[in-house]
Amino acid sequence: MILYGREVADKMSEEILNEVKELKDKGIEPKLAIVRVGRNESDLSYERGAIKRAEKLGIKVEVFELQEDIKTDDLVGCIERINNDKLIHGILLFRPLPKHIDENHIKNAINPIKDIDCINPINVAKVMEGDKTGFAPCTPSAVVEILKHYNIDIKGKNVVVIGRSMVVGKPLSMLLLNEDATVTICHSKTQNLKEVTKNADILIVAIGRAKFINREYVSNKTTVIDVGINVDSVGNLCGDVDFDDVKELVKDITPVPGGVGAVTNTVLFKNLVKACKMQMGY
Amino acid sequence: MILYGREVADKMSEEILNEVKELKDKGIEPKLAIVRVGRNESDLSYERGAIKRAEKLGIKVEVFELQEDIKTDDLVGCIERINNDKLIHGILLFRPLPKHIDENHIKNAINPIKDIDCINPINVAKVMEGDKTGFAPCTPSAVVEILKHYNIDIKGKNVVVIGRSMVVGKPLSMLLLNEDATVTICHSKTQNLKEVTKNADILIVAIGRAKFINREYVSNKTTVIDVGINVDSVGNLCGDVDFDDVKELVKDITPVPGGVGAVTNTVLFKNLVKACKMQMGY
Repeated sequence: MILYGREVADKMSEEILNEVKELKDKGIEPKLAIVRVGRNESDLSYERGAIKRAEKLGIKVEVFELQEDIKTDDLVGCIERINNDKLIHGILLFRPLPKHIDENHIKNAINPIKDIDCINPINVAKVMEGDKTGFAPCTPSAVVEILKHYNIDIKGKNVVVIGRSMVVGKPLSMLLLNEDATVTICHSKTQNLKEVTKNADILIVAIGRAKFINREYVSNKTTVIDVGINVDSVGNLCGDVDFDDVKELVKDITPVPGGVGAVTNTVLFKNLVKACKMQMGY
Repeated sequence: MILYGREVADKMSEEILNEVKELKDKGIEPKLAIVRVGRNESDLSYERGAIKRAEKLGIKVEVFELQEDIKTDDLVGCIERINNDKLIHGILLFRPLPKHIDENHIKNAINPIKDIDCINPINVAKVMEGDKTGFAPCTPSAVVEILKHYNIDIKGKNVVVIGRSMVVGKPLSMLLLNEDATVTICHSKTQNLKEVTKNADILIVAIGRAKFINREYVSNKTTVIDVGINVDSVGNLCGDVDFDDVKELVKDITPVPGGVGAVTNTVLFKNLVKACKMQMGY
């Protein structure tokens, strides 16, 4: 089965639309702040997608575009103004930030209750603790949304995650553990990787290497979730998995594009609505 | 090989003694605050052990004994006084706290730089990020100390952790990941547990069930680290592993008592000295 992200995003969007409507009936307009330092093309592209989706969901967006050479203190100042703005309920801050910025300082500056992309350590710790009053980062949450949407059994299953970043691998492992998966975390130093992945019920790949995973790494019981977004040798978007090589063999697989990436920004708005409700005391 | 904790603790104590001496030569006296609510017997026993070890290491200890019915605000007040006391460098707070206390509030109250047992979310997040400016909790750190002391290869190895608590399993998995292990986290919902554990190069057991792991779960290549401390049917201390059943079969094993538990409070003082140096700007 091909696990299309669009179908998941559409279902989630329906629920978000209902919640937004309920909030608006109470006079509350959910609003996202996007904080962007500089004009990185991939940030701008994500921003355009987010703004378009926000419009469809009836959610307001305000973009704070800051100069590439902004000082840490001034960025903190901008974040604090957003923290204090009662009409804004969530913050998306693009990272990585320019090198001269003290990222640690910034992470702590974002009010945890508006930190819908899980940058503040308080939310990171909550992800680890399985405390659902926090916010998990959007990409790992999108993976869990896809698995749940397609009723793929997680509890007790062997889930192998390749990649150990703070953006995907580590928080995703914690989210899956909270869903009662048996989680194995692999990475560049893992020995006998094929042996480990062939044994997986669910294989999640987040390594950032185009078409790295081929049929040697999977079995006919594997559900493959491909988090990678790369450009292949002829300039097409592709994942970390060689889709054409494995698709006939595996049980399920997400495409790239149209898989995890199609769900990520919907999770952002799901988190925004959750944040809005928490701030309004619902 | 039997991996005795005492040997590890003695080696670490030598290094701590040297560091304490260096600090004292500069006029600095490292000091630990123990905050205990009520008079739980296991807390008191750990406290006696810690005081005894502190004496040997030339480290001062001040015990703050608080009434079982103390209010959250008063406990926070006590912690804030310790935060502000420049002569105290680290805080050990016994948990679990009585149920009427808002533990979340307390966790955030402890100054991260004095939080040598990793209660504050800032340190929890640092453990997950692999940021060594933070403090990892003592028991998981003791496991890593033992493996390193006995030169047991971690990098690239299959390490299986049974147990997913915030005190041991989860932070330990993160520490091992930072040592480049391939980490599998198992728990009560894991299917085919024996199959998973038999494949481990290193098996770490932290489930709190006396002698649960027997020879069916291990192989002759397994290094077994037993984190459990239980009382068996005839009243003797025992681990989560059936030591007598597996000891001839496995490659290495820690005894209980005399294994991980013998290292834990030495890690506490290693962290205290690190905290003291950080606070003094070294």
